[in-house]
Amino acid sequence: MRTQKLRSKKRSSPKNAFYAQSGGVSAVINASACGLIETARKYPDKIAKVYAGRHGIVGALTEDLIDTSLESRATIRGLRHTPGGAFGSARYKLASIDKNRAQYERLIEVFRAHDIGYFFYNGGNDSMDTAHKVSEIGVQLGYPIICIGIPKTVDNDLAVTDCCPGFGSVAKYIAVSTREAALDVLSMARTSTKVFVLEVMGRHAGWIAAAGGLAGEKTRDPPHIILFPEITFDRTRFLAKVEQSVENSGYCVVVVSEGVRTADGKFLAEAGTKDAFGHSQLGGVGPVVAQMTQDAFGYKFHWAVADYLQRSARHLASKVDVEQAYAVGKAAVELALQGKNAVMPVIVRRSSKPYRWSIGEAPLATVANQEKKLPRAFITADGFGITAACRRYLLPLIGGEDYPPYIRGMPAYVALKGRSVPRRLKQPFVV
Amino acid sequence: MRTQKLRSKKRSSPKNAFYAQSGGVSAVINASACGLIETARKYPDKIAKVYAGRHGIVGALTEDLIDTSLESRATIRGLRHTPGGAFGSARYKLASIDKNRAQYERLIEVFRAHDIGYFFYNGGNDSMDTAHKVSEIGVQLGYPIICIGIPKTVDNDLAVTDCCPGFGSVAKYIAVSTREAALDVLSMARTSTKVFVLEVMGRHAGWIAAAGGLAGEKTRDPPHIILFPEITFDRTRFLAKVEQSVENSGYCVVVVSEGVRTADGKFLAEAGTKDAFGHSQLGGVGPVVAQMTQDAFGYKFHWAVADYLQRSARHLASKVDVEQAYAVGKAAVELALQGKNAVMPVIVRRSSKPYRWSIGEAPLATVANQEKKLPRAFITADGFGITAACRRYLLPLIGGEDYPPYIRGMPAYVALKGRSVPRRLKQPFVV
Repeated sequence: MRTQKLRSKKRSSPKNAFYAQSGGVSAVINASACGLIETARKYPDKIAKVYAGRHGIVGALTEDLIDTSLESRATIRGLRHTPGGAFGSARYKLASIDKNRAQYERLIEVFRAHDIGYFFYNGGNDSMDTAHKVSEIGVQLGYPIICIGIPKTVDNDLAVTDCCPGFGSVAKYIAVSTREAALDVLSMARTSTKVFVLEVMGRHAGWIAAAGGLAGEKTRDPPHIILFPEITFDRTRFLAKVEQSVENSGYCVVVVSEGVRTADGKFLAEAGTKDAFGHSQLGGVGPVVAQMTQDAFGYKFHWAVADYLQRSARHLASKVDVEQAYAVGKAAVELALQGKNAVMPVIVRRSSKPYRWSIGEAPLATVANQEKKLPRAFITADGFGITAACRRYLLPLIGGEDYPPYIRGMPAYVALKGRSVPRRLKQPFVV
Repeated sequence: MRTQKLRSKKRSSPKNAFYAQSGGVSAVINASACGLIETARKYPDKIAKVYAGRHGIVGALTEDLIDTSLESRATIRGLRHTPGGAFGSARYKLASIDKNRAQYERLIEVFRAHDIGYFFYNGGNDSMDTAHKVSEIGVQLGYPIICIGIPKTVDNDLAVTDCCPGFGSVAKYIAVSTREAALDVLSMARTSTKVFVLEVMGRHAGWIAAAGGLAGEKTRDPPHIILFPEITFDRTRFLAKVEQSVENSGYCVVVVSEGVRTADGKFLAEAGTKDAFGHSQLGGVGPVVAQMTQDAFGYKFHWAVADYLQRSARHLASKVDVEQAYAVGKAAVELALQGKNAVMPVIVRRSSKPYRWSIGEAPLATVANQEKKLPRAFITADGFGITAACRRYLLPLIGGEDYPPYIRGMPAYVALKGRSVPRRLKQPFVV
């Protein structure tokens, strides 16, 4: 009797969960991890341990798992204010099931070996596709697993969700940095720099570039020009606008997306910037457009490329963004415990003014591989600015500050112990 | 009797003061203006009005003066948290008196026309030289004027003073940004970016680059490499160090000063980065060294150029820096009222741990045209890092946070009314 009870208890014992970060990281992806782990810890009868993939899905394939149960409460809490991907992320897209069935089978093999019943995948479009496929292959291989996507992308290009955790903080950073740099240029323009160019991320969608528009509030406020990937670059029109700004305001501030293209579809960054060895990776689009203004008018220019600074700037995170990042991590666990599968929590906007939002859900199939571009109605008729509708959309997302704690002048970001779960499989897997 | 009393009162009526911002601006130069104006307003019997040069000394030459007495107390107070140069700055170095005596005579003419008895000049090495010359020419032309320099430079290269207002905030920004970006790179390095390069300011002195070193605390912490203008760039040694970092840590973070030079004395930024038109202004040193690592090892890289973002980032100012900037503005007025002339208030370090400082003074002649480089003892033997002595020097300067107020997610920086003082001279002056 006693033995049988124990056995049946063992049989119904809670499954472990697997969590992985995917793709480019953000200032708040760890806040999602924090929300997920803190919530999972509240349900020990349903989720035993949360194992995280070291370097994302690569960690699952290579059976390189981090045992998050060995991390202290303080460390997990500290993830909320720590940028980057604390578990390691990966740019690693699984091929289609037809093309590389072995990868999917390996995933299931690892999950089976570690008694994993939940797959939480924190990423963008591609990752939602992967999470969707994993849920399908699990069923096919007789190992059903609950798969929940957790939205993350600084690019804000995920479908269905009103916005993506990670974007609000980049938006705030770019808006504030543009305002600050513009004050600098304004100071100097009489005798020195007339044109300042800030290059921002967003290879396919202009959301981050649009956020630069929040730096200004009145018509002639900087930035005077935003160059979006959604608008074909026209050198003549651009230069005319620069000249007009310098004549009207004495200076010109340009925010340019790395994804700006010319009429032939090529990235502007590739146009005429080869070094002595013929490489074209050198130099971004920022220096290219800055140089154009000097060639045309002789203006002295400066340019900045924010690159990783913009997406790791936890010191200037949007409070709304941090809260939403935490909320989608928490909701992922709650959805899983409700028995939902192949879904992703989404941010639903209830109202813009005052800003109200709640968490909804969307089937992964509706999110996977979609790409949400900046609507044309968010860009002014001349193609160089943002409209009032865009401003209404963006402004709530940069709302509030959420400063990390500081020790001796520096932010106290946490580092994990990152202890490995002992391997159970004999066969290694090469990725 | 009554008439005579009035007359004598008029004769001894307080003089006006002239204030100007000079050279590249900073996140805290306006805090110095705030300290100066708030202090001057406490002594209406000694200083009548503070007139500011619109765009620095250019405003004095062209008789384009801003009447700061028309700005509200709230606006002046708001200067303390507003980056850039609120009155406009100028890159405009007065020639030597022999070469361009007319400029100096014009200055005195404008000062005489506006009853200006105090000249406050907020800038770097060059500006201290100018302030010194103005005090001399005033005596020569029979218009004695009290000339006080106010230290400002993000480069931290002014002599005598222990540090320069403006530097602490850039240092904090670069240290924090390096730490944040390094967390990002660490996340991605397994499958993506292995080398990250951050280009920072400091054409002649490596103080700002050194501040990047504060991002790490233990031996293998990033940044793994700092490239200083004080150390001749050696491609072979640099690449060996990059390879070693990637092998040991999986990635490599490099902070590079824009002023790094090769053995032939040329800026590294000029080495082999010409665009299709043969221009060499394109691209900074950041992309150059990043590309080198790819050429040598095939590493995927990212690079950022902080440019004006670093020196305008008031959102992340050092509290110590803000306090010192305010203090030197205040001290400038106090020195003037003590009858001191041709001096500059300096920061005196009383102790590093705990950090204690006070305000001293130095004759302009000892500061003018000097340049304080990073001591060799602050750079590690291999030339790629900072020593414990450097850390002891730098750490107090980034101490404390001093956040600006925010409204709807954006910092509430102030703008001046900037009303002009009516012109009194008939002759225009062309600069």
